[in-house]
Amino acid sequence: MTSNDNSWLDAVAWDDKGLVPVIAQEKGTGDVLMFAWMNREALAQTAAIGQAVYFSRSRNKLWHKGEESGHFQDVHEIRLDCDNDVVLLTITQHGHTPSIACHTGRHSCFYQRLEAGQWQAATPVLKDPGSIYK
Amino acid sequence: MTSNDNSWLDAVAWDDKGLVPVIAQEKGTGDVLMFAWMNREALAQTAAIGQAVYFSRSRNKLWHKGEESGHFQDVHEIRLDCDNDVVLLTITQHGHTPSIACHTGRHSCFYQRLEAGQWQAATPVLKDPGSIYK
Repeated sequence: MTSNDNSWLDAVAWDDKGLVPVIAQEKGTGDVLMFAWMNREALAQTAAIGQAVYFSRSRNKLWHKGEESGHFQDVHEIRLDCDNDVVLLTITQHGHTPSIACHTGRHSCFYQRLEAGQWQAATPVLKDPGSIYK
Repeated sequence: MTSNDNSWLDAVAWDDKGLVPVIAQEKGTGDVLMFAWMNREALAQTAAIGQAVYFSRSRNKLWHKGEESGHFQDVHEIRLDCDNDVVLLTITQHGHTPSIACHTGRHSCFYQRLEAGQWQAATPVLKDPGSIYK
């Protein structure tokens, strides 16, 4: 990457809060593990260090995924959609086998499945969240 | 589905515009094809007819994907994330082989890949958009 050229960051259509939605998809399985947001600095850091850095809207600050849980995400590929306003990451999820991306201790954040008009937890908790976040 | 029970729709954490972000992932390939938004009515219709109905923010109305292009999406599974504020669909993308979800005539909307500090079109146009939208 050419460090002085930030035109790729300028190309992103940041929303009115300066954010872009980000989908994290696991390399190998293809599973969609989580969805989060990035601001310009988060995306720049993600590209620079090769690990996912999001922007936490609830804490209003950068969030290097794994900084508390140890569940870091190596980023293999960064993609942008046709409208330049959504980012797709291809990642390897570290910290546990099988991998855990969700703060509930599950593999994926998308564990609730609509069945007969109700949301049902479709995948198990792999690790007690209390032991993930000390 | 119990038609009189809409508690599953109440469970969704709609944003301040009454919308929820939606990821469409292709069954079989696992490819993330597109990202869009739904309001309550769009999600209800999607579940009712088993095809993806989004809410177009630019046109400010419901958008039954494929209504103009013929590229309908059959919905196999509807998932909700841990915060109840993002939806993941598992779909079959109809209308062309190989499948086209993007209005540019490409398989996936996520065709721009960051390479050496620049966004590069990483996948080909499968069909002239001019012949998709009459």
